[in-house]
Amino acid sequence: MKQRVEIVKRILDSNEQLAQQNRKKLDDHGVFAINVMASPGAGKTTFILQTIARLPKDIHLGVMEGDTAPVTIDSDKIVAAGMPAVQINTGGDCHLDANMVGLALDEFDLDEINLLLIENVGNLICPASFVLGNHANILIASVPEGDDKPYKYPNIYRNIDVLIINKVDLLPYIDFRMDYFRQGVEMLNPNLKTFEVSAKTGEGFDGWIKWLQEKVGNIQE
Amino acid sequence: MKQRVEIVKRILDSNEQLAQQNRKKLDDHGVFAINVMASPGAGKTTFILQTIARLPKDIHLGVMEGDTAPVTIDSDKIVAAGMPAVQINTGGDCHLDANMVGLALDEFDLDEINLLLIENVGNLICPASFVLGNHANILIASVPEGDDKPYKYPNIYRNIDVLIINKVDLLPYIDFRMDYFRQGVEMLNPNLKTFEVSAKTGEGFDGWIKWLQEKVGNIQE
Repeated sequence: MKQRVEIVKRILDSNEQLAQQNRKKLDDHGVFAINVMASPGAGKTTFILQTIARLPKDIHLGVMEGDTAPVTIDSDKIVAAGMPAVQINTGGDCHLDANMVGLALDEFDLDEINLLLIENVGNLICPASFVLGNHANILIASVPEGDDKPYKYPNIYRNIDVLIINKVDLLPYIDFRMDYFRQGVEMLNPNLKTFEVSAKTGEGFDGWIKWLQEKVGNIQE
Repeated sequence: MKQRVEIVKRILDSNEQLAQQNRKKLDDHGVFAINVMASPGAGKTTFILQTIARLPKDIHLGVMEGDTAPVTIDSDKIVAAGMPAVQINTGGDCHLDANMVGLALDEFDLDEINLLLIENVGNLICPASFVLGNHANILIASVPEGDDKPYKYPNIYRNIDVLIINKVDLLPYIDFRMDYFRQGVEMLNPNLKTFEVSAKTGEGFDGWIKWLQEKVGNIQE
């Protein structure tokens, strides 16, 4: 077992180095990059599409789409919305890593964008262990997943900068105790920035877009 | 890289052997075991609780609860419903393996049960690669996750014996094309047994309970 642990550590060390290279490249080009994590079906792509629909003129977006299978359902939607998108097929792996993101970065003209959204593989466990070089981690939780998720997947909640609570339009039809949910989050990540939204209707997006503008503005100063 | 691949293969081989031991133990005691997989929040525990509420007298159930964190939220619910439950904490791992299940099997009196439900970690990727020794694999998909999941997570859909489509009570409030979803499933796993249910309301459970009775009956003959 010792050998296995050491090999895993070496993989993580090497990932860390590649992540630092990615960060330098992003910084050199003034691109603010966000790692978007969520469980399958929490609404990552719909959230990105609603963000695109409300994108201020001073934000120029690129999107990376991580998938475990060679399907382009999500990246096709981003391209149809008029934004440059690169699909990353992990070949069955349960997360993106810094090497995959580095290769995908080469596919963008980084002088043409100032915001990069990296849609990670739908998973609440593996992505939390692999840094990519991005500036902020966001998690999209969705109301139908239930109010106990912070208690059951604590690692990912500890390592995020923003929490999006999506599908609030479904609150009337679901037993979801927002207080209990928020209490679990507060315990793991005090004072975490959160936005309650519906990516379907656009409700609650003003605060999120304002947060994005501040971050993109700061990195370009 | 070659070394890494060989080590992974050795881990899987060893898992396969332990899974065979688990299967033999289950068969020796006439226990039908089901590996229950799903993404986080698809309703695995609620599904098991609704199954308990409708359990015929000839079925004697035990439940294993796989979690990535040391929380007993789910296993507490099972025990409160009057059934023996053992919690498995994977320590951050994204799936159960045959060793964990073997250790948990020792905690049950296998002569007292004839059905074992093994609730895997909430994840659509990792659990598909690790056999546990169970007799059937079921996947619980839920309507709010969206109708594109078979296309995006094909591996898990290929390796299941039963598909539960849960939360059908939310269909009126969600854009979910059942035809498109079922077409994706059919492509990956033709003639797969499926049940459309609401674990919340109990809708659609008769067929599932009947299927369970047949399987438990067969293994005890």
